[in-house]
Amino acid sequence: MAKNNNDFVTHIASRNEDFPQWYTDVILKTDMVDYSVVKGCMVIKPYGYRVWELIQGEMDKRFKDTGHVNAYFPLFIPESLLKKEAEHVEGFAPEVAWVTHGGEEKLTERLCVRPTSETIICSMYSKWIQSYRDLPVLINQWANVVRWEKSTRPFLRTSEFLWQEGHTAHATSEEAQEETQRMLEVYREFAENVLAIPVITGEKSEKEKFAGAVATYTMEAMMQDGKALQMGTSHYLGDNFAKAYDITYLSKDGKLEYCYTTSWGTSTRMIGGVIMVHGDDRGLVLPPKVAPIQVVIIPVAQHKPGVLDKADELFNELKATGIRVKVDDTDQSVGWKFNEYEMKGVPLRLEVGPKDIEKNQVVLVRRDTHEKLFVSIDDLANTISGLLNNIHKTLFERALAFREAKTTNAVNMEELAEGVKSGFVRAMWCGERKCEDEIKKETGATTRCMIKNHDVEGHVCVHCGKLAKAFTYFAKSY
Amino acid sequence: MAKNNNDFVTHIASRNEDFPQWYTDVILKTDMVDYSVVKGCMVIKPYGYRVWELIQGEMDKRFKDTGHVNAYFPLFIPESLLKKEAEHVEGFAPEVAWVTHGGEEKLTERLCVRPTSETIICSMYSKWIQSYRDLPVLINQWANVVRWEKSTRPFLRTSEFLWQEGHTAHATSEEAQEETQRMLEVYREFAENVLAIPVITGEKSEKEKFAGAVATYTMEAMMQDGKALQMGTSHYLGDNFAKAYDITYLSKDGKLEYCYTTSWGTSTRMIGGVIMVHGDDRGLVLPPKVAPIQVVIIPVAQHKPGVLDKADELFNELKATGIRVKVDDTDQSVGWKFNEYEMKGVPLRLEVGPKDIEKNQVVLVRRDTHEKLFVSIDDLANTISGLLNNIHKTLFERALAFREAKTTNAVNMEELAEGVKSGFVRAMWCGERKCEDEIKKETGATTRCMIKNHDVEGHVCVHCGKLAKAFTYFAKSY
Repeated sequence: MAKNNNDFVTHIASRNEDFPQWYTDVILKTDMVDYSVVKGCMVIKPYGYRVWELIQGEMDKRFKDTGHVNAYFPLFIPESLLKKEAEHVEGFAPEVAWVTHGGEEKLTERLCVRPTSETIICSMYSKWIQSYRDLPVLINQWANVVRWEKSTRPFLRTSEFLWQEGHTAHATSEEAQEETQRMLEVYREFAENVLAIPVITGEKSEKEKFAGAVATYTMEAMMQDGKALQMGTSHYLGDNFAKAYDITYLSKDGKLEYCYTTSWGTSTRMIGGVIMVHGDDRGLVLPPKVAPIQVVIIPVAQHKPGVLDKADELFNELKATGIRVKVDDTDQSVGWKFNEYEMKGVPLRLEVGPKDIEKNQVVLVRRDTHEKLFVSIDDLANTISGLLNNIHKTLFERALAFREAKTTNAVNMEELAEGVKSGFVRAMWCGERKCEDEIKKETGATTRCMIKNHDVEGHVCVHCGKLAKAFTYFAKSY
Repeated sequence: MAKNNNDFVTHIASRNEDFPQWYTDVILKTDMVDYSVVKGCMVIKPYGYRVWELIQGEMDKRFKDTGHVNAYFPLFIPESLLKKEAEHVEGFAPEVAWVTHGGEEKLTERLCVRPTSETIICSMYSKWIQSYRDLPVLINQWANVVRWEKSTRPFLRTSEFLWQEGHTAHATSEEAQEETQRMLEVYREFAENVLAIPVITGEKSEKEKFAGAVATYTMEAMMQDGKALQMGTSHYLGDNFAKAYDITYLSKDGKLEYCYTTSWGTSTRMIGGVIMVHGDDRGLVLPPKVAPIQVVIIPVAQHKPGVLDKADELFNELKATGIRVKVDDTDQSVGWKFNEYEMKGVPLRLEVGPKDIEKNQVVLVRRDTHEKLFVSIDDLANTISGLLNNIHKTLFERALAFREAKTTNAVNMEELAEGVKSGFVRAMWCGERKCEDEIKKETGATTRCMIKNHDVEGHVCVHCGKLAKAFTYFAKSY
């Protein structure tokens, strides 16, 4: 079976030979995404968008369970408002799109299309927050944002993308820092338990942190080419934005205090991560929890009496238990169908033909292991639920083992340079920008994150030999 | 009870005295929405956004049940692309926002921020559709759009708003026309069964139809000031866009044919409709199916032993059955709470105090009728579900009776002018733009929609006396 199917998929580049081409082939041929006439902007096609909807559903539930509510703020930000937080505008101004005309008229002030919404949201918080009774404010927004990118790749880096951005305001620094960590943990748990992607969490360097933040925390995943993908970030903003946008409250003691704020975001970029962590040379391999189709039923010899009826019966039975299932009874060949849904990453293929019906069984083929199972039709929904869970677990463990195998420790630059050719490198670092820049120049790797609470005493920087400040992940990255 | 509460709400203007001010008071004081620093753009606050989320959930289910899938297309449309359909660009160009710069660089071609997405979506359909096998294409998009408006009001008319836009392509004119009617019917059923708003459906005049459409169908609702609100439209686009954007397919007979397309949309404007149809002088009255809180539990004498425990117990019981319920156990006074949730339009207030607990009962107060009910705690979830359904029914019937009472037939201009002062007027119309314009000039009313299949034979136009072409609704409108 496997061999025959390979004939259908030779048009996908192999990952080992050309990973970027493999990625492009997969996203286009599986109808996840398409290029548009607008430079740098992608079209998310229905199959890709469904993955995003499933991601949204899972994340939104987690945000609400941790006390957050959704709201919507304007797409446009007046230039003067953007400029109030100096570091922030410096970071974002070079990459924003500017609206200068409304209809036939020139605007008196340019509006930027939001690259992120701290500024516009803080301007509202300044108005809404008066007293300690108004705190905390825990708001999330699902929205599109625009960052004018020179070089783009669908899902990974596009001029417009979809995301969620949380923005919270608190009475104290401690509470804001707790929130920052809480949401980082929500992201980690989501990445691992929904996307089946193991992630490393830690703090970004001064250079890599969000423009205007006191500290940025990140979750980083390893792609199959050994590069890192930043999958989500959570920022502790201190009172930087509160001071720039005048967000104050009257404390219980009647004193006027500044708030402490946070922001945190994840985007459609995560879909790129799912593809690059789990995919194989036959195409997508989707983790069951975000697979638009979890089980595809392929009737075999479907012209024979009873086959389509049985397929429909199984469809209804599985659908009733909440499994996302599809029957393909089109007149395409069975071989074409096997290949098509394999390429599309459907976790389980269910084959049912006259002989299976006779034996009261179906054939299940796992997308992750290609394992073929003959299982009883009785209690099928339970069997399948169990298998879907097992596929999730297998994908996660495989990705984790891959990452572990490709992660090394370096005590000198030779080791670091060698390690980042194919994966992540952990090394001691002095924390200085100069070393960070030189390491990048010499090896192509950036600091991905600093590991909290890791003992550095007595250790020295992998680059300059001075006393180490942080045990740090280095990697090439997207 | 009612009298006391009125003391709290004198800050909301009365509908009869100043309907526009009443609307503004209600949306601001109930935290539905706020003005932003960006001219004409609103902030949808969590309470208002939750209504939108509930609307989205109900609509999205209906779209999927009728075979549609969601996708996402770029925010920006190159000027040259927008201009391909002549009538369309003429209609929209005066009200679009133009992006001229990306970062520091001037763009070689201006991009408009989508006012609607026919043009960008058609450019993709041209690429995606090759054969009759690719048809129909049934896609919906949830998105923000921008129309540069001179005079704005939150929800009703803002420079940016949220909406859904369906875009479908079909092999034949008949199929496209069927789709147009199907989605109009989905909208009508949604308006009536979810928003409890009775609507009139019919066809728009040439003047009022969508720029580029062959025919536009609309659903119109009457607000409490007698004005019409267009709540949603469904457009049959013929092959206009297919020809402008070259959407062709190879038919079964091997002939190259143009597709026929449709588009249909509803927006956050519907929330304005909900407010203006159901609200009263005490504030919002939300239909249960889109109420963020369906039941608010107010513990009475909450310091007494057992009261808060019972409130929590009831909360858990109701929540488990899927009812959206909240307990307010803050230290605000009971009177303040009664007023607050009344103003916020919560369909049912549940009071529980020591005496109620003794009697194994609770007190329920309906927001729609102010009726006070003493009901047994046993089987409470069922009682409440029944009441919520009844509230929906009552709201719908009340709105329908109001509309019927304010709708008149006119056979001359005096009757028409008089009728549109306070409601809808049905009259025969010749169908000519000249009469339509003059009626507007003389009475302030526009044609809202033409009623299909209504016999016009032997009748004459209410304005010019020539033979009538359509029995038509006239009204002042938002």
